[in-house]
Amino acid sequence: MAGKVVLHGMWASPYSNRVELALKVKGIEYEFVEEDLTNKSETLLRYNPVHKKVPVLVHDGKPIAESLVIIEYIDETWTDGPRLLPQDPYERAKVRFWAGFCQQQLFEAIITVVKTDGEAQERAVKEVHEKLKVLEEGIKGNYPEGSLFVNGDSVGLLDIVVHSILGAHKVHEEVLGVKFLDPEKYPRVTSWVTALTEFPLVKEAAPPHEKMVGFLQFFRARALKSATA
Amino acid sequence: MAGKVVLHGMWASPYSNRVELALKVKGIEYEFVEEDLTNKSETLLRYNPVHKKVPVLVHDGKPIAESLVIIEYIDETWTDGPRLLPQDPYERAKVRFWAGFCQQQLFEAIITVVKTDGEAQERAVKEVHEKLKVLEEGIKGNYPEGSLFVNGDSVGLLDIVVHSILGAHKVHEEVLGVKFLDPEKYPRVTSWVTALTEFPLVKEAAPPHEKMVGFLQFFRARALKSATA
Repeated sequence: MAGKVVLHGMWASPYSNRVELALKVKGIEYEFVEEDLTNKSETLLRYNPVHKKVPVLVHDGKPIAESLVIIEYIDETWTDGPRLLPQDPYERAKVRFWAGFCQQQLFEAIITVVKTDGEAQERAVKEVHEKLKVLEEGIKGNYPEGSLFVNGDSVGLLDIVVHSILGAHKVHEEVLGVKFLDPEKYPRVTSWVTALTEFPLVKEAAPPHEKMVGFLQFFRARALKSATA
Repeated sequence: MAGKVVLHGMWASPYSNRVELALKVKGIEYEFVEEDLTNKSETLLRYNPVHKKVPVLVHDGKPIAESLVIIEYIDETWTDGPRLLPQDPYERAKVRFWAGFCQQQLFEAIITVVKTDGEAQERAVKEVHEKLKVLEEGIKGNYPEGSLFVNGDSVGLLDIVVHSILGAHKVHEEVLGVKFLDPEKYPRVTSWVTALTEFPLVKEAAPPHEKMVGFLQFFRARALKSATA
């Protein structure tokens, strides 16, 4: 599949990181345009007038927004690299179901922890643990033992989504003082995420820990300030 | 594609209606199990332990939850009927993008109008109009003139989602006293929805107007009561 590929993203955005990782897994060359989210470019606003957000993938001049939509597009367009979704429709449905759950429920709860303090934060932490418990139960028996990656030896859409949410668990621990991933409570999820963070392509694409800590501190301070303003 | 198909649904649920319409468009025979959402069946809870919600499609004993996930599964499994998503990856991405927007933004805003009154409701009504404006702009030029259906002569995933949200606009008007669809303000969306409601398969699958009015009144009263409790 030919055509110029440009990704409008932001280095610390989990949504943007997902698309970068998908492009790397597929071995697709692309140009990365770093967006300043406090001063969005005219190009970004023109390409994504609906959400005005990163990531936007521009393929041959045609823009696509929303990280999960982009990843499915990548998988359907560059069909010669490793598959990001399984071939079987039922397995695909399971991947889409769990990707939706992780995105809409687990990630939303984590974001709430980042943006709150006091009792509101305690409630959100409890909710994160409830969602992790659901995920732990949910993946029981769904993946072959010893290989939690959807495709066995490569990372797929669900791995990418899970890593974009839980791959930063040490950053969460340092900034928020909460431990989400506990091998005693969530053995499958913990070993899955650990294996993912050690996977060479994932490791290479991940932003440095210290830089992420600084970003999350800044993001949290800004959210708390605007909540009390 | 053989195998027994059972749909656990609820007659008034837009999510459930989506899947029924998709099955009808594809010409798939299925058994419908009406769920009492105030007293969910053991079967439903076993099939969808994560969300505990309808619809759940059970194909050959294998459960699939979440309406959009189910519709993609149907399209990928029964490949001989009319396609619910376009074949071209970029067109598919557009359908998924707009289905997500309608579901997460437009529908959420309408639900808020249903569940609130006073100033909160006024704010929500304003938001619905903002979202409708975005949809009106968004579909400009995306569909061939004179045929707003994704596939030209059949209904597709985006049609199904849009109809499940806006097909009840006359019910909204009667129960909420608000007019969302205005041909002056939203000519494309209005003519799209009108054409959809007149499409034979859609007409046949839609619950009767009076019954829907009664249901929405009940749903609204219960939501307002629980908000003040």
